[in-house]
Amino acid sequence: MVKTIKADELKALLIKVFKSLNVGVEHAEVIADSLVNSNLRCVDSHGVSRGLDFINGIKVGEINPRPNIRVLKESEISVLIDGDRGIGIPIAHEVTMRVIDKAKKYGVGVGAARNLWNVGALAYYVMKVANEGLIGISFANSKARIGIPGIKSALVGTNPIAFAIPTGDGPIVLDMALSTVAVGKIVLAARKGEKIPEGWAVTKEGKPTTDPKEALEGYLTPMGGYKGLGLAIIVDILSGIFVGAPYSLIISGKGPYTQGGFVIMGLSPKLFRSYEEFIHDVKSYVETLKSLPKEAGVEVLMPGEPEARCYDERVVKGVPLDDGVWEQLVKVMKELGVNY
Amino acid sequence: MVKTIKADELKALLIKVFKSLNVGVEHAEVIADSLVNSNLRCVDSHGVSRGLDFINGIKVGEINPRPNIRVLKESEISVLIDGDRGIGIPIAHEVTMRVIDKAKKYGVGVGAARNLWNVGALAYYVMKVANEGLIGISFANSKARIGIPGIKSALVGTNPIAFAIPTGDGPIVLDMALSTVAVGKIVLAARKGEKIPEGWAVTKEGKPTTDPKEALEGYLTPMGGYKGLGLAIIVDILSGIFVGAPYSLIISGKGPYTQGGFVIMGLSPKLFRSYEEFIHDVKSYVETLKSLPKEAGVEVLMPGEPEARCYDERVVKGVPLDDGVWEQLVKVMKELGVNY
Repeated sequence: MVKTIKADELKALLIKVFKSLNVGVEHAEVIADSLVNSNLRCVDSHGVSRGLDFINGIKVGEINPRPNIRVLKESEISVLIDGDRGIGIPIAHEVTMRVIDKAKKYGVGVGAARNLWNVGALAYYVMKVANEGLIGISFANSKARIGIPGIKSALVGTNPIAFAIPTGDGPIVLDMALSTVAVGKIVLAARKGEKIPEGWAVTKEGKPTTDPKEALEGYLTPMGGYKGLGLAIIVDILSGIFVGAPYSLIISGKGPYTQGGFVIMGLSPKLFRSYEEFIHDVKSYVETLKSLPKEAGVEVLMPGEPEARCYDERVVKGVPLDDGVWEQLVKVMKELGVNY
Repeated sequence: MVKTIKADELKALLIKVFKSLNVGVEHAEVIADSLVNSNLRCVDSHGVSRGLDFINGIKVGEINPRPNIRVLKESEISVLIDGDRGIGIPIAHEVTMRVIDKAKKYGVGVGAARNLWNVGALAYYVMKVANEGLIGISFANSKARIGIPGIKSALVGTNPIAFAIPTGDGPIVLDMALSTVAVGKIVLAARKGEKIPEGWAVTKEGKPTTDPKEALEGYLTPMGGYKGLGLAIIVDILSGIFVGAPYSLIISGKGPYTQGGFVIMGLSPKLFRSYEEFIHDVKSYVETLKSLPKEAGVEVLMPGEPEARCYDERVVKGVPLDDGVWEQLVKVMKELGVNY
């Protein structure tokens, strides 16, 4: 069953739910905003369904609903925050706001957080940076679930990287995990009883497989083979060891979405040019790519453009919640005595 | 015919050749060092064979042998250099040295160069950064040669990204182009009269192909499909537009290896932790990955480890120059009156 709900209404519900779980109102608002933003952008894996994991994490005592977010180390251009085992979203948001300030003043800001739960979609933070006229770059590492043939273990997480570029209009946004495909595609194949293509996954013994069930017990392959694996290792070091957070293989916590560390950078286009020149050239770049000769019916979309189109549609039509997500949310609301 | 020559001897020859082409001695030394370093690391595509392109570029007047390298903009943490149409290697090297100074003082340095010819292997610069105990990150963009099905044009260059992480011993080094495979693999298949696997290339009309000749007239595919294309677009913006350099589709110059712009960043591990803690954890990370359960005969290699092993071997045994590279170099030396 699909329930379609207006974004504002969904956000208000989520705020109520998180507040009833002892999350402070400011944190609840940022968490709800990030989750609903992901649903609006068609990134449903990082939307309300992930919120349900947070709710469960609080209930079982793994997540601290009222973290004492502390600055551990700060300079004019850098900041490191301890998240006190809270939901990662308000923690990463706090880091992002500070990085924006620094990058506006000094041209560069580098921020990081450790000791935190999942941060949701990295796109949320780099878009905040781009909306302030800065280039945003972000990394995070997660539990190991990428493997390769011959190794009887996962090696690294799907360790996402994200970038956002201001365009004067909506930003160009790339936010991608470093696996060949998202685990959701394999879950879908398993449900439909279909095989998966070769190269998507290996078994837990490190054998290539086209069986989605074996794949789900095993590991995802890295995008682009060894290149993607190398990049996932670098991201593991940059968002884990660089930050003093765990690397993918030693990230603890029961939930599938515990995080290692989070890193975000802001770079001012004014470091090297005038902002106006930069924006002018970005616009001209997008136009050039879009006007390349192509087959009929083919279109060049910039990174983030499919998500922006989905956003525009869902803001009007509402957010469709399927896969039992709505039922689970209703159940949680009843348990917590939150009125709908 | 393969000619094997000691690295020092090869370097001395190249220095003589570039000096005889009116390249200043300091520049000639850095150029020779970078090229021979690539050969030593088994990255022969960025070694002497690329040096031959530089030589030709100078001869036809496209490259300025004695560039007036100028700082266009500088702050405590950033620097932008104009390369005056010189060979990119000494220009990128100058940027790198300045970024190292800045990152040592302030924890972060961001440097860039525009108006330059090819910079060779990015690994050369990020390794210099890592050898100073800093994390190195670099991007560059090049002429458009990546395409996708349905588009009758290349969209972006193979736009490489590189990272180096200090380990207290040899650095972890990832330096990769964003195409599925290097063009050299397709050249090899064409020479052998073999088909190439599906997914490596498209024709110039944007049709998938397994014919290496059609592939060479067409475009390389991006690594990991749309993810890699998205990343190549971001790199195009970061090393082109951000820097005030051309993006891939408008890079001019006759040679195949003209560059758009070059960016390098240095990050100090001391931004967030002590250097000793960082190095300790990196070592422990490498050990953990290497000791994962695996099939007999399989080994986990860190990014850059195959190249480091090749380096150790070639330093002792000499650099093998094949594919007519040695003959071309001898011919050039004769023309220039350089003694061998």
